[in-house]
Amino acid sequence: MPSAGTNGIVYIVGGGPGDPGLITVKGLDCLRQADVVLYDRLAAPELLDEVPSDAELIDVGKEPKRHRRSQEEINDLLVEKARAGKIVVRLKGGDPFIFGRGGEECQALAEAGIRYEVVPGVSSAIAVPAYAGIPVTHRGVTTAFTVVAGHNGGTDSGIDWEGISRIGTIVFLMGVEHLPEIVAKLSAHGRSSDTPAVLIQEGTTPNQLVITGTLDDIVEKAPGIRPPAVFVVGEVVRLREQIDWFAKNDQQTEVIASH
Amino acid sequence: MPSAGTNGIVYIVGGGPGDPGLITVKGLDCLRQADVVLYDRLAAPELLDEVPSDAELIDVGKEPKRHRRSQEEINDLLVEKARAGKIVVRLKGGDPFIFGRGGEECQALAEAGIRYEVVPGVSSAIAVPAYAGIPVTHRGVTTAFTVVAGHNGGTDSGIDWEGISRIGTIVFLMGVEHLPEIVAKLSAHGRSSDTPAVLIQEGTTPNQLVITGTLDDIVEKAPGIRPPAVFVVGEVVRLREQIDWFAKNDQQTEVIASH
Repeated sequence: MPSAGTNGIVYIVGGGPGDPGLITVKGLDCLRQADVVLYDRLAAPELLDEVPSDAELIDVGKEPKRHRRSQEEINDLLVEKARAGKIVVRLKGGDPFIFGRGGEECQALAEAGIRYEVVPGVSSAIAVPAYAGIPVTHRGVTTAFTVVAGHNGGTDSGIDWEGISRIGTIVFLMGVEHLPEIVAKLSAHGRSSDTPAVLIQEGTTPNQLVITGTLDDIVEKAPGIRPPAVFVVGEVVRLREQIDWFAKNDQQTEVIASH
Repeated sequence: MPSAGTNGIVYIVGGGPGDPGLITVKGLDCLRQADVVLYDRLAAPELLDEVPSDAELIDVGKEPKRHRRSQEEINDLLVEKARAGKIVVRLKGGDPFIFGRGGEECQALAEAGIRYEVVPGVSSAIAVPAYAGIPVTHRGVTTAFTVVAGHNGGTDSGIDWEGISRIGTIVFLMGVEHLPEIVAKLSAHGRSSDTPAVLIQEGTTPNQLVITGTLDDIVEKAPGIRPPAVFVVGEVVRLREQIDWFAKNDQQTEVIASH
């Protein structure tokens, strides 16, 4: 599918939520034909095994010279490699357009006149709850869900808490370190303290850890949770009791922290 | 990956938004090993070509005896085929848990004691805007998006318009026939009439049709739009001007209706 002309091409690929089987067929094709792969914070590191052995792998999450690469430096690297005629894959966790800064990379490539394509991925926002037995929508429960960048939880920058608190299912990606503030804000904006809530760490992987509770007790139940984690609030969380397929099938260990 | 014991198994698979390359690797594996496939309203009918030639294909969207199969009849069919020891794939457009009634099928299978797995898919809610050059989130533009079942647009059943109207990016799946009511409700709940809006028909396919406007004029600009269509409201729609990669790469015809 991919082909490089004299000017190269960049594929901005969503690598999915963690289970390597959840990459798309097109995304895998791109990886298998890549000359250069730029990646960082991958949920599914196994995907790098699919890259040709002579391809150049660049971990843009690592500090090259005592500083972490800025988004601008990553953009420049994409342009430089494509201009050298390479098939370049920019591999990201989840979907490139959900808090992945994929839009900024597209803007940089468009400005530089580089040919590029976006290969959407399965988002952690939907698939991580799914593997924990939680459909983000369910007939008779909710007809809407919202996805929020939780790492802004500690500040008021851009999040409309009033609006978000009213949506049936709320999914927070990132920002588990701001959990107490997130819970406090939802409660302050009228979300009932007995609303079911769940924290899922390393979802869709064999290390998946699920902690269920309510807005009232989830913070004290989850003292040790660490990224990557997804936080889901809403009545759909109750469905897990019935449809917890992943844990049942694969004998995952579930830890319900007690206090 | 799939294997059937004496009791069979059901894979509830998301087929993605339309581009057949956007099915997951695991989803394609399931299709290629299926004994029975139940499908309806598929965005990517090409996927059925991947099923073994001796597999049974059942279009559950078709009326078998002058009536459309109910969800209960579909559930019963899944249970019956799995009990006969078959590898059963329930193939759905997009993701099974986003307005796909996948949760109800899981409940039925769990109740019947049938082994099943969920294979999440790339959702139209995210990938259809992406192919139209619109990231649902973008740094400095919005830190949240919401996805709503638009076919409830004409009624007040379950939609919190006050909450939804406040979210940066709003994506409506289905319900393009309720477009005037949806736009009226958003406006009535304070969303500015100059908010950018876009309708995307048959997104991610060669027939992709994109109509851009604002909440003020999108209804008159889109008289002939028909399902499947996705409606997106928010400032992110403006990014299309810069990053409309799919149309540029493949010489898609864009129709901006004039009035």
